[in-house]
Amino acid sequence: MHTRNSWQQMWSCLLEQHKPGHGLPREFYNDPEVYAAELDKVWRSGWLFAGHVCEVSEPGDYFTFAVGADPVVVLRDDDGTIRAFHNVCTHRGTLLCQQTQGRVGRAIVCPYHQWTFSRNGNLLACRGMHEGVDKSALGLQGIRVETVAGMIYVSLAENPADFRPVREVLAAALPHNFERAKVARAIDYEIHANWKIVWENNRECYHCDVNHPQYVKANFDNAEAEQNTAARRQALAEAAARSEARWAAEGVSVTHKRGGLALFPDAEHDIWYSASRTVLADGYESESMDGRRVAPLLGNFTSPDVGVLRLRTLPNFWNHTSCDHAVTTRLLPAGQRLTHARVTWLVDRDACEGHDYHLEQLLPFWQQTSEQDWQLCDMVQRGVDSTAYRPGPLSKLWEYNVEAFIAWYLRRMSS
Amino acid sequence: MHTRNSWQQMWSCLLEQHKPGHGLPREFYNDPEVYAAELDKVWRSGWLFAGHVCEVSEPGDYFTFAVGADPVVVLRDDDGTIRAFHNVCTHRGTLLCQQTQGRVGRAIVCPYHQWTFSRNGNLLACRGMHEGVDKSALGLQGIRVETVAGMIYVSLAENPADFRPVREVLAAALPHNFERAKVARAIDYEIHANWKIVWENNRECYHCDVNHPQYVKANFDNAEAEQNTAARRQALAEAAARSEARWAAEGVSVTHKRGGLALFPDAEHDIWYSASRTVLADGYESESMDGRRVAPLLGNFTSPDVGVLRLRTLPNFWNHTSCDHAVTTRLLPAGQRLTHARVTWLVDRDACEGHDYHLEQLLPFWQQTSEQDWQLCDMVQRGVDSTAYRPGPLSKLWEYNVEAFIAWYLRRMSS
Amino acid sequence: MHTRNSWQQMWSCLLEQHKPGHGLPREFYNDPEVYAAELDKVWRSGWLFAGHVCEVSEPGDYFTFAVGADPVVVLRDDDGTIRAFHNVCTHRGTLLCQQTQGRVGRAIVCPYHQWTFSRNGNLLACRGMHEGVDKSALGLQGIRVETVAGMIYVSLAENPADFRPVREVLAAALPHNFERAKVARAIDYEIHANWKIVWENNRECYHCDVNHPQYVKANFDNAEAEQNTAARRQALAEAAARSEARWAAEGVSVTHKRGGLALFPDAEHDIWYSASRTVLADGYESESMDGRRVAPLLGNFTSPDVGVLRLRTLPNFWNHTSCDHAVTTRLLPAGQRLTHARVTWLVDRDACEGHDYHLEQLLPFWQQTSEQDWQLCDMVQRGVDSTAYRPGPLSKLWEYNVEAFIAWYLRRMSS
Repeated sequence: MHTRNSWQQMWSCLLEQHKPGHGLPREFYNDPEVYAAELDKVWRSGWLFAGHVCEVSEPGDYFTFAVGADPVVVLRDDDGTIRAFHNVCTHRGTLLCQQTQGRVGRAIVCPYHQWTFSRNGNLLACRGMHEGVDKSALGLQGIRVETVAGMIYVSLAENPADFRPVREVLAAALPHNFERAKVARAIDYEIHANWKIVWENNRECYHCDVNHPQYVKANFDNAEAEQNTAARRQALAEAAARSEARWAAEGVSVTHKRGGLALFPDAEHDIWYSASRTVLADGYESESMDGRRVAPLLGNFTSPDVGVLRLRTLPNFWNHTSCDHAVTTRLLPAGQRLTHARVTWLVDRDACEGHDYHLEQLLPFWQQTSEQDWQLCDMVQRGVDSTAYRPGPLSKLWEYNVEAFIAWYLRRMSS
Repeated sequence: MHTRNSWQQMWSCLLEQHKPGHGLPREFYNDPEVYAAELDKVWRSGWLFAGHVCEVSEPGDYFTFAVGADPVVVLRDDDGTIRAFHNVCTHRGTLLCQQTQGRVGRAIVCPYHQWTFSRNGNLLACRGMHEGVDKSALGLQGIRVETVAGMIYVSLAENPADFRPVREVLAAALPHNFERAKVARAIDYEIHANWKIVWENNRECYHCDVNHPQYVKANFDNAEAEQNTAARRQALAEAAARSEARWAAEGVSVTHKRGGLALFPDAEHDIWYSASRTVLADGYESESMDGRRVAPLLGNFTSPDVGVLRLRTLPNFWNHTSCDHAVTTRLLPAGQRLTHARVTWLVDRDACEGHDYHLEQLLPFWQQTSEQDWQLCDMVQRGVDSTAYRPGPLSKLWEYNVEAFIAWYLRRMSS
Repeated sequence: MHTRNSWQQMWSCLLEQHKPGHGLPREFYNDPEVYAAELDKVWRSGWLFAGHVCEVSEPGDYFTFAVGADPVVVLRDDDGTIRAFHNVCTHRGTLLCQQTQGRVGRAIVCPYHQWTFSRNGNLLACRGMHEGVDKSALGLQGIRVETVAGMIYVSLAENPADFRPVREVLAAALPHNFERAKVARAIDYEIHANWKIVWENNRECYHCDVNHPQYVKANFDNAEAEQNTAARRQALAEAAARSEARWAAEGVSVTHKRGGLALFPDAEHDIWYSASRTVLADGYESESMDGRRVAPLLGNFTSPDVGVLRLRTLPNFWNHTSCDHAVTTRLLPAGQRLTHARVTWLVDRDACEGHDYHLEQLLPFWQQTSEQDWQLCDMVQRGVDSTAYRPGPLSKLWEYNVEAFIAWYLRRMSS
């Protein structure tokens, strides 16, 4: 019940406290009004990664999640189209689909009074209503859906941004054929930190050397230009050169040959989507604990030498895909100090657990990396909650993407 | 610390959003200011069902509960009068009676400093206080009590509504003699839903067919006029006719011979109390799983053919009483999204558990019905919390009482 | 984001509701804005007991706690100085020291990006930062520390009150030599009550007779002047006279010879620190269940006849020290209805558990007394949360210190 004026005043006051090149002030991470505004201006306005096409492979398959307090259901329609709806009955408001993952019959039937909706959201029947009820006005509230390279995006906005540029960029995943993949395992986490703390953690590898020992053995993320040794630069250049010809044969190309992280996001041009492919360290064919493949090759690959593809879209998605498996992280805000994360491992759908792949080999690399990060995020939240917290300077060598994330966020919030 | 003006503005704004014939908008079910106003205008102003006379059968017997954050104790005085007090010491504010159910000695002694109150609330002793303390001004804050047909009502208001019309209506329960009953079992529930969602659920049987299979076998609640088949109307008429003579012999009369729910409440005349007696389905002598009696006859009944008596008073009570047992539901608000419910089963006080009645026969009918409803209420709350929730139309055939409840609520809140 | 004006209005309004000689009105115990103002005007302005010097006996030893949401670390520097810092990295805000009690190596290394701080808070290294970063401006935010007689005090204020008068008063503990003590056991409690309720409980022994049977056998706190029998006064006078000569030999003197509690605090002169030494009851050499000593003598005492020393400082500390052991209570606010308490038992550091002392003899006296009090506080909070709670009169005979506490609190808050 806040007036627009008082929010504008508060926001201006907060913006004034932000020093360029530094982190955000305390209130950005714990104030309930800031969080409410973020739900409006970031989460209900942007495109959100929802899940994978292979999670709803048959008509009637659905999965559910919540954006703040807004329950959403994604399901495959009779004709194979993937659709999304507010998971709320248009009669009395009951939650329609109850499970995290399930299958509806020929229609979606509300458990309360059995109002019955077609899989494309039309109200088919509402037995017991009086005459004159306009069923055409009582269909489910649809949510915009786009799919690209086996990934499902939704937007709760009425007029979301054009998805075409995103589609072009995420097409980089096509050779890995996520559509022909299956979920080997998904793990849900509660991170006791504001969602921006999770992103700021994701946007730099300054913390990797000590916190992610298994990760830095496989990757060059911690090889930022100015920190890099000559030997490391040499190793990276050789790895890239050696791979380039073979990659071309597999239909993919290296796009990020430097050490360190690819520049992302780009606030000035409002670029919130990105894909890049990098080499892995010598001896690594996949992002696994020992570098060996942990599942059959994805797509039509004939060689494991395809490096690692990385995708990310703001505000809620990143993915690392090796030659043999993909790992997706989906974030959802659940409070100013609580973020839900789901980490999902994909392998080829014909791969057989216990035979073609083993969870104890597939999971640890990203399970450990993720859990290490969530623990760091918890500790950052506890510190920024202090009235004594003062945002420090961000490293221009390592944290340029944290600064870019903040710039993007502030631009989105001020729009 | 809200000003009267800003609340009036907010309330007007909310009222404007309510479309007649539709459910209430979102904020009614989750806004903390709306909830605070409800505690004031509904819960601390009206008459609340507290418990049964038989729960405080001896002088000194007490039970406690809380209306929002207000602890209340109900106890039987030395002379047998039932009294209620704010369960708060007039010295430092300590909770006086600690248990949900218990017995005080000759006096109520505060556990903190042993201030001692008579069972009628007078401060008898406060050893240790200086001279000049006016004990007469430090008695317990009394709460208005009325009893009718073995039921105890309290009002936290200074000048509550006249209780006489309620007394007349609830006298319908006299033949069942609740005063000579005893509690066979009470079960406490936490419903994760606003209290109005619980009432809206209670005020229609549109949801019964699918959700309450055991209930609809025994009752005609789901036989709304326009939905009724000729065969069903016939069955109901025959059951009513067959019973009427026999009922008269038992001193009771059928008052609701139609299918569907009795009209309740009546906002226009501010009628928030009601009693009706209906027939049970053929083969049902009691609201039990198989229709058979589950306890000895109540009162002075000589025949089980007394149908089922239903009582309800807003904002917190309903009761179904068969020939042999009574089931009472008491609601208490515990937050904008949390309602406490206590369901209590009464049988004749001379009935012996394991011999005259068995809990596994007595409880299931209403335990299942209640738990089915609470689960539905939880799902409605999750849906109406969505920013995408839009109240839908209420069925004029089935949900007339939901509309009546909303009208009553809005009138009470606007007073 | 409250304006100063609206707070001043609210505070004036609250003050008007307070009747002299009575408890505080409801909002003082549960309003979030009052609590926020208290954090500012009491907790972040005053001196807080942090812990004992013997808890950080070696360089690098640290312990942590939180004042509201402000994490604090206390540690011993290389040169033996005890220092305190906001436990928040000056880079991104991460919590620096993770354990409640631990030891840092030669430096404090942030787990996130390994910014490295000397034990006196200077930023030694921040590898990975760009050139031009002014390390001298990025040291840890220091917190004022004072130690006295083995006790560590901190203040989060920039210009806290002069500590010298406190030092003089608490020097009364020197003969017990806390510096040469060790922690035998510490127990953490969550009290579901506002911190002022805990103090109001502490500031009177009106509740002792019934609630602390073990305590009143050992002490004369419940022997308030006007309530005292001639026999009790006689016993107290004799005990004091008998002890006085012996105490002098041990270098201590009796300072509180009357029954009842010493006067504390003194709002008029803003005295929030106090020490007094009283006799124990006949047959009691120590505050233990049976009065017998439960550990070797502290300090250089040669006789157990040193009565009991009591220390207290507002807003968060009290201590009872017998000849053989000391028991310290430290309070910390954790919400308007939640207070964290840590109770710590000290014995001579050379005492050997299981040989020189046994926890089952050492702990019960104060463990029981504390837990009895916390339970009372829980019940007071539940009562004062009632909208029907009206503050009652305070006994001039027994609760003069509760009134003094309220006066001190109101003065501090209004400053």
